[in-house]
Amino acid sequence: MFTGLSAFPLTPINEQGIREDAFVGLVQRLAKARVDSIGVLGSTGSYMYLSLEERARITRLAVEHAEGVPVVVGVGALATRDAIRLAEDAQSAGASGVLLAPVSYQALTEEEVFEHYKAVCEHLDVPLCVYDNPGTTHFSFSDALHGRIAELPRVASIKVPPVSAEPNAAEERIARLRALIPEGVTLGISGDPVAAVGLTAGCDAWYSVLGGLLPEQALAITRAAQRGDAREAQQLSEAFEPLWALYREHGSLRVIATLAEAMGLVRTPCLPLPLKALEGQARERVERFIVTGFTR
Amino acid sequence: MFTGLSAFPLTPINEQGIREDAFVGLVQRLAKARVDSIGVLGSTGSYMYLSLEERARITRLAVEHAEGVPVVVGVGALATRDAIRLAEDAQSAGASGVLLAPVSYQALTEEEVFEHYKAVCEHLDVPLCVYDNPGTTHFSFSDALHGRIAELPRVASIKVPPVSAEPNAAEERIARLRALIPEGVTLGISGDPVAAVGLTAGCDAWYSVLGGLLPEQALAITRAAQRGDAREAQQLSEAFEPLWALYREHGSLRVIATLAEAMGLVRTPCLPLPLKALEGQARERVERFIVTGFTR
Repeated sequence: MFTGLSAFPLTPINEQGIREDAFVGLVQRLAKARVDSIGVLGSTGSYMYLSLEERARITRLAVEHAEGVPVVVGVGALATRDAIRLAEDAQSAGASGVLLAPVSYQALTEEEVFEHYKAVCEHLDVPLCVYDNPGTTHFSFSDALHGRIAELPRVASIKVPPVSAEPNAAEERIARLRALIPEGVTLGISGDPVAAVGLTAGCDAWYSVLGGLLPEQALAITRAAQRGDAREAQQLSEAFEPLWALYREHGSLRVIATLAEAMGLVRTPCLPLPLKALEGQARERVERFIVTGFTR
Repeated sequence: MFTGLSAFPLTPINEQGIREDAFVGLVQRLAKARVDSIGVLGSTGSYMYLSLEERARITRLAVEHAEGVPVVVGVGALATRDAIRLAEDAQSAGASGVLLAPVSYQALTEEEVFEHYKAVCEHLDVPLCVYDNPGTTHFSFSDALHGRIAELPRVASIKVPPVSAEPNAAEERIARLRALIPEGVTLGISGDPVAAVGLTAGCDAWYSVLGGLLPEQALAITRAAQRGDAREAQQLSEAFEPLWALYREHGSLRVIATLAEAMGLVRTPCLPLPLKALEGQARERVERFIVTGFTR
């Protein structure tokens, strides 16, 4: 399950609550495109901004409309007791796997993070993906810690932060990490702009923001890389350079939310305040990309 | 209310829930010592690890046992809708003021932070203190943004991050900030090790971790600085250097939690997992400090 394209949809929301119809519509697009898995309630799904009850509801909706595509659910929370509860809720709702990030408010020690993963794994019957995203969690894994956590039962994948865009450096990074983890634990790239590089460098999966909104385009990049056509994967990725530039300036969430609004797939606003989609010139650049970019 | 010593107690908790008796005991110590205000559910009070319901309960307990000392309540949350709900809950429970930090998961823009404060202020009848703590919120205020937010109705204080330990640099920093904010908005120092310097440099308040556990000692430092005796304030502060050293290595929360456990004021564990109090040599240093330090 933690291989190929894992597509992370937005959770459309406004101050009145989750827009369930819009969320179901996004899931149905992914199911129809036959992505390899659907990753709900990742950073793109605004998991940290939702209540435990809303997160359980989103999971149930996703499983119900995924048409058999495995659903992976983000269960990250600041408190271990909440992460355990979320893992149990996700399993009850039919999730095929969970994704756990070491979210922090107080800076965490390596030992605290290890114990956090251990405690959640003890409550799991489904596989877990370690979500390493220092930009939002403010925790940086050492390679040694990745190795220790990957030995825990249920751990089946690591979602690694963006690799270098330089192919040799990326390959070296992935090989170094792989040497530290058990066989069978997969590595998945995050950071859409370097997904083609990461897959070519030996990642088994792409945990994809783009794929949550444009599954066919993300599948094309994934399949090209999987069949060893690095050049094709890279060329397909480069067509998205206008989006990647916006990601670098505003973060992927705001860009994809704006794109979803501009495509008419969600209503405006679709992000939980205080987060806002793009406005002004940045929004115009997104709108221009729809016309000149992927619809060509 | 946002002047003098604002003392921030721990929220003792284990995996079964809040230890209400222990929390009430901490509040009673502060009330008896007549601190200038009690700041519950700050970073030291683990606010981000508790449910909205637990936070409302803690506020009610604090107001009930504060014996007339004003209670200030941390209402920070990732989602604006939660911060508004918490502000309303705090007011209903009898809080005299609230403390709001721009907690982040996705990195926030200045405009998003401004709108977040504005939205919460619109739901407030009590004064608000802006909680600037980049170490935990991962948001850094510009001085210009502090100036804009300080103009909002209800904003009455800014809790500023640690200043330089060098008195002239500290004074310059406080003067620069004060020039940007309306008269009547107070500035409070955080970072216990530089509290004496900060108060001497012109801060009106000390938002104090130490004061939440050792109110008399923190009051002695505060009162010395308030009567202009910088040397006495500094000397009193230097007696805590063994604690400040531990703060720098482990963060103030783990140190104060360990101290509270060692003093028998709370049971072990008292922090929400994944957070842990100190163990081994660090814990021994805390225990040694009790004997050789403030009880002399």
